[in-house]
This record gives sequence, C-alpha cells and structure tokens, in this order.
Amino acid sequence: MRLALLGVGLIGGSFAAALRAAGAVQEVVGCDLDPGALAAALRRGILTQTAGDVADAVRGADLVVVATPVGATRAVFAAMAGSLSPEAIITDVGSTKSSVIEDARTALGPRFSHFVPAHPIAGSERTGVEHADASMFSGRLAVLTPTPGTDEQAVAAVESLWLAAGARTERLSAETHDRIFAAVSHLPHLLAFALVEMIAGAADAQLKLAHAGAGFRDFTRIAASNPQLWRDVCLANRAHLARELHSYRARLETLQRLLDAEDGVALEAVFARAAAMRRVSDEDASG
Amino acid sequence: MRLALLGVGLIGGSFAAALRAAGAVQEVVGCDLDPGALAAALRRGILTQTAGDVADAVRGADLVVVATPVGATRAVFAAMAGSLSPEAIITDVGSTKSSVIEDARTALGPRFSHFVPAHPIAGSERTGVEHADASMFSGRLAVLTPTPGTDEQAVAAVESLWLAAGARTERLSAETHDRIFAAVSHLPHLLAFALVEMIAGAADAQLKLAHAGAGFRDFTRIAASNPQLWRDVCLANRAHLARELHSYRARLETLQRLLDAEDGVALEAVFARAAAMRRVSDEDASG
Repeated sequence: MRLALLGVGLIGGSFAAALRAAGAVQEVVGCDLDPGALAAALRRGILTQTAGDVADAVRGADLVVVATPVGATRAVFAAMAGSLSPEAIITDVGSTKSSVIEDARTALGPRFSHFVPAHPIAGSERTGVEHADASMFSGRLAVLTPTPGTDEQAVAAVESLWLAAGARTERLSAETHDRIFAAVSHLPHLLAFALVEMIAGAADAQLKLAHAGAGFRDFTRIAASNPQLWRDVCLANRAHLARELHSYRARLETLQRLLDAEDGVALEAVFARAAAMRRVSDEDASG
Repeated sequence: MRLALLGVGLIGGSFAAALRAAGAVQEVVGCDLDPGALAAALRRGILTQTAGDVADAVRGADLVVVATPVGATRAVFAAMAGSLSPEAIITDVGSTKSSVIEDARTALGPRFSHFVPAHPIAGSERTGVEHADASMFSGRLAVLTPTPGTDEQAVAAVESLWLAAGARTERLSAETHDRIFAAVSHLPHLLAFALVEMIAGAADAQLKLAHAGAGFRDFTRIAASNPQLWRDVCLANRAHLARELHSYRARLETLQRLLDAEDGVALEAVFARAAAMRRVSDEDASG
C-alpha cells in the first residue's frame, strides 16, 4: 500500500508513522512546501520518498492523506484531481469538516465519493514532523464525517486505518462535528489567544508573566498553538465559532454585572455549576 | 514555637506541615468550622491540638496563620484581636491582599503592625487538608505585601518561615499584587468558569463533553477550583478584576468583528503575538 502525505507536519507525520508501524502502508510519498520538513521526515524514516508537487505525489497512491492547514485544502484537492488513481481513497485530518467537504466536492468532481473526511482528536503544543510520534493516536478518538454521497467501502477503509493507528473511531455529521468543536476547541483557543495577547501587550507584561500562576499558565500553553493553523480553523468554522463567541460574550457581560453588583450568591452559583461539570467530564470523556 | 492555624485546608495545612517538617514550629493548634477537617489534620499529624474557637486557638500562640477563604478574614481578625499574645506575629495566605489588609487594619487596631500579608503562589485543583503536602511550596514563590506600618522584624520572621517551607520570597505592594493577580489568576479563573458553565448548560452538553479536546480540558481543570473561595477572591479584588474583564471583553469584541469580516491577516497577527509570549513566559517564570 502506497500513501501520499500532503502536508508533512505533526499530525500527518504521526499518522504515516503509525500506519507504517502497524504494517498498513509500505511506501509513503511526502509533499510539503517546506524542504526542511521533508528532509526531517525522510531522516526519521516516516517518508520513503518525496515528490515535488501534489500531482506527482498522488500518482499511483492507494491512499491520499491531506494534512495541511485547512485553509490550504481547496488548492491541494484541485492540484490532485487530475492525477488520482481510479481506486484511490482520499482522506484528511482537518479540525473543521464542512469547509473541507465543500472544498473536496468542488475540486474532486466524481472522485468526491472517495473522499472520507476525518478529524483525529489529538495533537500537541509542539508542531512539526520532528515531534511526530507513531503512538500519538493510541486510545484517542478519530471522528469521521462522511456525507450521504461518500462511498461506504471508502469510509470503512479509513476507519480500519485509524483502528490500525491505535485510535477508536466515531461517525458524526460534519454539521454536528463543527458545532461541537466550535464550543470545546475553537472557542477555548480563541479565548486563550485573546488573554495571552492582552497580557503580552500590557505595560506591566514582564511583571505579570513573572507571576503567572496555575490559571494563566494553562492559557499560555493553549495559546502556544500554531497561529496560521488556528487562523484557518477560525475562518473555516466561522459561523459556528461566531455564534459560540457571541453567547460567551453575553455570559461575560452577565458576570461583569454580577461583579459590579457584588452579587456573591449569583457568582458562586455560576462557579459551582462549572466546578460540578468537571466531575461529569472526568467520567464521560477519555479522548 | 506554637502556631495557631485558622482555617485548616489545603494551603494552611500544607504550610503547617512544611513548618513542622522543617522544625520551625513544634505545636500547631487548629481551628475550623468543619470538624472533619480538624479530625483529618490531627490524624495526619499536621495539628497537635484543636481549639473550639478563634480566641482559644490564638491564646499563647507565637504565630497566627489565617488560611480561610478571604471573605472570612474580617470576622477571624475580629475574633482574635482580644486574645493575641503581645509578641504574636499574624500572617495570612490569601489570594488578594488589599482587602485582607483593610480587614486587619480595622479589626486588629494597634496589633496591625504585627500583621504580615502574604500570598504563596501554589495550590492544586484538589482542596481540603486531606491533600495537604509539606513539599507544596518547594521552589514556589511566596509574595509578601507589607504596608508602611508593618513591623520590619515581623516581615523578616514571616519571610524566614516561607524560606523554611522551601519557598522563595518577594515583596510587592498590595496594590501591585492585586493588579497583577487580577490579570494572571483571577481573570483566567473567571473565564474558565464562564466557559465551562456555558457548555454545561448547552442542550448538547453531553455530546460536547464527550469530545473535549486539549483546549476545553484545560478550562475544566481551572474551573474545578473551589467556587466559594473564588467567589470571595472575585469580590475582594473586584475593582482590578472588573477592569481586566472590561479590557478582555473589548478584545473579544474586536475578535468577533475580525471573524465577521473574515480578516485572516489580523486574526493571525493576534494569535502570533500570543504564541510568541509563551516563549518569554517559559524563560522568565518559574513560580
């Protein structure tokens, strides 16, 4: 089995490494705008060869994995369309799904039925194929969001690859996926970026940073995520994210009013509902 | 040396345990509204005896540590005022300082000069003396915020106790302390409580929780903090916190406008400034 990896970074590199470790693929052809990423991936044995462009990379591939920032997927689909093997299965690892599906539908034409949209819930604040890890998806969740037009055998094939990589899989509609992740991933990242950028711009930034306790330190870790990647995510999932941000701002307006009114009872009630959720979260989620 | 510990929880219990382990105190008299906390602290050897009320606890004590939620400090200072030994040094571990200083000034009268306001930057999402740990302050920062009226020998004595507990110490004005911690601790907690409470109240809360990734999971950990304690902190540091919340809401308004305008360049610039800060933070802060 021959895999074309388009975008050789942390997630794509880890998926390729996991599939090779599992014996699910033998050859991995990598394509990336950054020659340094290709060199590092070859050196680490994640790639078996490199290609100069997307069309070259996908020619003869059984499986094509798009692992670029989501803002680049449309161009990548367009570049591969004319060179895909008839039986090739195409999938991706993007954090948003509706926009990627629309990109694929537009660019792939009749080959769209072989595109299986996917999103592994994994990652790290470290970026780059240097930190790729074949065990990254072990025990993690890979969400697949096939459309009514997606070929069932293609979906099953991609599911079996994620299982081979150690993940468990789940199917959701792209709409449900994007709504959920706007709330539990995209909004938290936006909030963390906003707080860290605010403190970074304060006149007493150095003093504040020198006293970063538990609260702020967690925000800086989230806000250390790749800016370009998150710009793409925010734009691609703009409608859902804007709605969540709007609700959240209304909550902050309420909290500001409670603070101004010194309403300790109502503040504590909000905090207590949040603190109670932690326990539910610990019980239910493992991804 | 005899220590009176008023409020037997995670922080106070850890400080008493550290001081006993270091040989800096021999007797620890505990006072708490919760008999279970007193029993647990006796069982763990953190307390050598218990007292039925604050006045009893401080009688004959060389050192009095107030380790209640900050909303309770005024009543605790008032209850101890008439029973303090002439040479007793009084200190606290509260997360806000100006309000505690005002409480002490009002209640302690001439003994106010022996009150040394302090805030160790440590803690855990776990609460209660059951989780107290003599090494909790090892390598951490203890901020002291003496006033111009605070006795210098009392400040030096409290500094030496924090050093004995393994911490390093720093002096700041209460005003500077409260301004800094409004930004790097109190606001992040408020933001986390608000997000987790929003998601907890959503119609699809279970689905969202089951898909909590890195971003939201960090928020749930912060939001698992003690609601009553954080209510007190928010009210006690209300002026600074309200100002920070106001600035932050203005930032979110800007981000909402950038999202609506699909302004990827400006969004990425905000994210990049935040991501760059992480590196500075890693270099500068260790507390």
